[in-house]
Amino acid sequence: MKVSEALEISRKIAEDVEKAVNRIAGSREAGVTVAMGKDGTPTKKIDRIAEDIALKILREHDLKIITEESGVVGDGETIVALDPLDGTFNASRGIPFYSIALCFSKTEALGGMFFAYVRDLASGTEYHSDGKSYRNGERIKVSETDDVRCNAIIYYPDRIYPFRRIRVFGSSALEICMVADGTFDCFIDIRKDCNGRGYLRVFDISASLFIARNAGAEISSLDGDDLWKKRFTMDERFRILVSGKNLHEKLLDVL
Amino acid sequence: MKVSEALEISRKIAEDVEKAVNRIAGSREAGVTVAMGKDGTPTKKIDRIAEDIALKILREHDLKIITEESGVVGDGETIVALDPLDGTFNASRGIPFYSIALCFSKTEALGGMFFAYVRDLASGTEYHSDGKSYRNGERIKVSETDDVRCNAIIYYPDRIYPFRRIRVFGSSALEICMVADGTFDCFIDIRKDCNGRGYLRVFDISASLFIARNAGAEISSLDGDDLWKKRFTMDERFRILVSGKNLHEKLLDVL
Repeated sequence: MKVSEALEISRKIAEDVEKAVNRIAGSREAGVTVAMGKDGTPTKKIDRIAEDIALKILREHDLKIITEESGVVGDGETIVALDPLDGTFNASRGIPFYSIALCFSKTEALGGMFFAYVRDLASGTEYHSDGKSYRNGERIKVSETDDVRCNAIIYYPDRIYPFRRIRVFGSSALEICMVADGTFDCFIDIRKDCNGRGYLRVFDISASLFIARNAGAEISSLDGDDLWKKRFTMDERFRILVSGKNLHEKLLDVL
Repeated sequence: MKVSEALEISRKIAEDVEKAVNRIAGSREAGVTVAMGKDGTPTKKIDRIAEDIALKILREHDLKIITEESGVVGDGETIVALDPLDGTFNASRGIPFYSIALCFSKTEALGGMFFAYVRDLASGTEYHSDGKSYRNGERIKVSETDDVRCNAIIYYPDRIYPFRRIRVFGSSALEICMVADGTFDCFIDIRKDCNGRGYLRVFDISASLFIARNAGAEISSLDGDDLWKKRFTMDERFRILVSGKNLHEKLLDVL
């Protein structure tokens, strides 16, 4: 699949999902649980609506799709990781901070990605990367700060950190893009579940990791390990650090 | 001053500030430091624009105004505490989460408040209280949950808490209103500066505390002390807990 075709498909999906989601965002109906997702978390009605629209369009193409609610769908050579609605809580409560994220990969590993797309569904702001990264069509780059007294997004602080500001908006895909464009200096997720695993799933973050990397970000696990050999599977969980190059080593020390 | 007049003045200010602020929100210009505020924090251009508009309207009335950038202005009997732009960082970066907050009081103490107004300047959502509390004209009330595994706004977590979700959006005035209307279960600010004082100032929170109280919230310091005898001064700093009545004691124990 060509990059231009991936962009066209992504944009079509995002526009259709945006319309449908915004129609019920903030309503009681939006937050009703309709099933359990394949990832083991409850599927809300607003998730289902978003995923149905996205899958309908994706299934017109020869793809293997990995997605939050339905798991793995199709068996094409090109892999698509899809989070049809990242920030379900915000969307269901009418808080204007939720997004759609999808990426296209030539291989089963994150390193095979060749296109990624994230759209802020409340504002319509669009991020994409085809090797270079863009916000509403304009090139973006990460912040160059080397000061740990920085503006951080962190899930969740477990002690006092040296950061200047801390924010937690509730849509990781969008928040990582806000590191890619320099709005924030770093994105960190240190959460562990009772089994010591992280919370982020591959479809939550792969698209925005590709966008961030191609905007100059350094990306790693909290141990500093590379993530690009990780695979597109339902099982993988991530604890990650995304920041500019001048801050990455310093933040690994802080964490 | 009558409640109806206070509402009219507040709405006029908020509408004018909203237009002016949204014109430059997200631009480089918005975040330029133009002076030091009377509260000791830098005044950004977007703060100055908001405050100039608000003060111009307020000064047509016989009021004593206490505000972030200019300190105390006027010597009327009715006191107004004004935060012309709460969430300056968000507004200057184009993140759609910032607000204006103002309240009217018959006395120098917070207990003298008789009207409060907070407006989400990005969405236009309007909160006010005249003894009862409203969101866009509809009565609101706090959540009734008694489960500490709740949806919390907390500045900033300093250890692992039992909350279900944590959010930090960056506009306390608006976030406290989101507790008033049940979107979140609690608002907590535990931050201390190097002198052991809190961060919140009276004009940051007084309006939304009045709105939250009249929506059924329990409000206290982190020691459980009442805040209504606190005075409208530039010097006061707050560390607070705002939640529904069923959760308040339990959260004081957790904190």
